Amino acid sequence: MVSFGQLSDNPAIPARSVDWQDDALVLIDQTLLPEQVRLLHLKAYRPVVDAIKRLSVRGAPSIGVAGAFGVAIAFRELQGDTDGFSRAVNELRLARPTAVNLARAVDRVAANASGGFDVMLKEALAIRDEEIAASWSMGVYGSDLLIELGGNRPQRLMTICNTGGLAAVERGTALGVIETMLERGLLEEALPLETRPLLQGGRLGAPFRLIVDSAGPFLLSRGAADAVLVGADRVAANGDTANKVGTFSLALGARHAGVPFIVVAPESTIDLDTPSGDMIEIEDRGAAEVVAVRSTTVAPPGTDAINPAFDITPCDLITAVVTDRRVVRLDLGEKLSEIPHGPTRGHPPSDRR
Amino acid sequence: MVSFGQLSDNPAIPARSVDWQDDALVLIDQTLLPEQVRLLHLKAYRPVVDAIKRLSVRGAPSIGVAGAFGVAIAFRELQGDTDGFSRAVNELRLARPTAVNLARAVDRVAANASGGFDVMLKEALAIRDEEIAASWSMGVYGSDLLIELGGNRPQRLMTICNTGGLAAVERGTALGVIETMLERGLLEEALPLETRPLLQGGRLGAPFRLIVDSAGPFLLSRGAADAVLVGADRVAANGDTANKVGTFSLALGARHAGVPFIVVAPESTIDLDTPSGDMIEIEDRGAAEVVAVRSTTVAPPGTDAINPAFDITPCDLITAVVTDRRVVRLDLGEKLSEIPHGPTRGHPPSDRR
Repeated sequence: MVSFGQLSDNPAIPARSVDWQDDALVLIDQTLLPEQVRLLHLKAYRPVVDAIKRLSVRGAPSIGVAGAFGVAIAFRELQGDTDGFSRAVNELRLARPTAVNLARAVDRVAANASGGFDVMLKEALAIRDEEIAASWSMGVYGSDLLIELGGNRPQRLMTICNTGGLAAVERGTALGVIETMLERGLLEEALPLETRPLLQGGRLGAPFRLIVDSAGPFLLSRGAADAVLVGADRVAANGDTANKVGTFSLALGARHAGVPFIVVAPESTIDLDTPSGDMIEIEDRGAAEVVAVRSTTVAPPGTDAINPAFDITPCDLITAVVTDRRVVRLDLGEKLSEIPHGPTRGHPPSDRR
Repeated sequence: MVSFGQLSDNPAIPARSVDWQDDALVLIDQTLLPEQVRLLHLKAYRPVVDAIKRLSVRGAPSIGVAGAFGVAIAFRELQGDTDGFSRAVNELRLARPTAVNLARAVDRVAANASGGFDVMLKEALAIRDEEIAASWSMGVYGSDLLIELGGNRPQRLMTICNTGGLAAVERGTALGVIETMLERGLLEEALPLETRPLLQGGRLGAPFRLIVDSAGPFLLSRGAADAVLVGADRVAANGDTANKVGTFSLALGARHAGVPFIVVAPESTIDLDTPSGDMIEIEDRGAAEVVAVRSTTVAPPGTDAINPAFDITPCDLITAVVTDRRVVRLDLGEKLSEIPHGPTRGHPPSDRR
C-alpha cells in the first residue's frame, strides 16, 4: 500500500502507522488495506510477533519501531521472568529476517532492561521519533539530489512497494522524497509499481498512475520516468541493497534506460557489519501468497511457488544511497564507510508533534 | 494460463483451444480459466471480434486462427453484402493490434473471397493445421538448440505467459519446447512467471514452481534457470520482439545472469515488413485490468494506470529466434532475412489428428 498523502487525507487513519497510546502498541492492520482501516491495540508481546510475521506492519522502519515497543511490552508482561524475557526478545528479533531495523531496534531496547519498563519505553519512543525525523530529513536530502541530477523542474518518479508513512511510521523513505518534491512543486507524476504478490500499490495524494511490476523496466526504456526511487530493508557496507522483490529488475531497467536509480533509507537501515548482499538472508514467504490474491485463487490447487519477498540489487546498479544524514554517490565511487554524516535536515510541522 | 499438459489431462478440455466443429468456431473461454472450462460456439462474426477483444482467445497463433475462421463466418453471414463483408474483415483485422498473426490470417482468408465460403473455410482450416504442425516443429528445433547450448542433461527453464496449447491451438510455442524437453527426459524444472495483470500462470503437467513476474530477473541472478524461453506476438525484421509485458525485464535479467534468452515463435509471427520494434504498436488495455484481480479490487476506486499489454525486447538481448523452420542465432550476427527455411520437423501423434 503506497500511502503518500493518505495518512492526512483519511480521518479514520491516524497520523502514524505505528505508535504508542494508552499503554499499548497501536498499529494500522495493513493486511486489510485498502478495503478496511482497522487499528490493532497490542498489550502482549506474542501478538506483536504475529503482527510482524503476518505483515500487519510492513516496511523496515515501521517493523523496527513495532519490535522496539514489543520488547518493552514483553518486559512488562513477564515481570521478572528473565528466561521468558530472553526468549521473547529472541522471538521478536527473529520475526522477520531481512530488515536490519528489527534486530537493531529490539537489541537497543533490550539493552536497557536493567532500567526497567519506563527506561525501555523511553528508548522505544526515541526510536520512533528518530524514524519520523529521519523521514523528513531524507525528503530534503533526496529532493536536493533529484534537482542536482535532473534539474529544477517537475519530474516523473517511478517507485516500488510501500515506502510511505505506513512503512516508515510517518511520511516515508522513497515516498517521503516524492512528497517533498510535490511540496516544492517539482513532481510531474509518480509511477508506483503495484508490487506483487501482496499488491501494496495504491493511493497517492498526487498525480500518479499505477503499473504492473513487469511493465516498469519497459516503461523506463520508453522514457516514462526521470528517476527511480526505492526504499530498502537492509543496505550492506558495499551498497548492495535488499528491498522488495522487483527492485533488482527495476534497477536493470534504469541502467538500460540511463536513468538514475536511488536508494532512500534511514541510517538505521544501513548495515556496515554486513559486507555485501551475498550475506543477507532473503525470506521466502511460501506459495500461499502467490497462488491467491486476497481471496481470489489465481492458480490451480496444489501449485508450488518460489516466493522471495526481497531481492538484492548490486551496488554497481545504484546511483546513490540517500539517508537522513547524507548522500553517498556510489556511481562516483563514494563508500558508505567513508562519507561522514551531516545534520538531520527538515522537520515535521509543529502541529504534528 | 500456462497449459502445458493440461489439454490432455482434463477430459473437459478439448485437444485444441481453437477449432471448427459443426459449422461453428469453437473456443475455450480463457477468461474463465482456471475456475471454469466453458466452450464458446460462435456462428456470427461480431462475437468473434468480441472474443478476441475480451481475450477469450489469447496468444498470437490462436488469435490468428480465430480471426481466420471469423472471416469465413462473416462471409456466410453477410451473403453477398460486399461492403458489410469489407467492414467485417476490417473489424476482425483490428480487433487487437500487436499480434501480426491476426492481420495476416484475416487477409489470407479474405483473399479467397471470390471462391466462396467453402474455399475460405478450407484456407482457415489450413492455417489451423499449419499452426499445429508448427508447434510440434518448434519443439524439435528449440529442444535441439537447448541441448546445443546447455548440454544433453535435464534443464531448468524459465518462461512467461500463456505459450502452451491455449496460445497456439495445440501444444504451444515456448511451452511446446518445454514439453518436448520433458518427453526427451531433459526437463528438470519449469519456472513460469504468473504474468500480471491477467495472471495467465498456472497448471503444468511437469515439475514446476510458479513465481511472481518481478522475481524472475532476481532468480536468474541466483542461478535458478539454465535458459529463458518466451513466445512472441510479433518479431520484427531485425529480431526486436513484441511479447507479453515482462518479457523485456526477463531479457535484461537473462543478460545480467549470462543465461540464453530464446524467442520461440512460428514463421507466421515473423514480420519482415516491420524493420524494428519501434514500429510495433503496443496495445494499452486500460486501468481496469490493473486495479482489480478478477473480482478483487487491489487499488482504491478511481486509480489510474498505465497498462501496456506487451513490451519490446531489443534484438541485442536475444540469443536466438526459434521458428518451425529454422533457428536464427541473433547472438552470432545471423539475420532473419538471410537464414533459409529448413523442413518442418516432428509431427502430432497420429491419434490426435
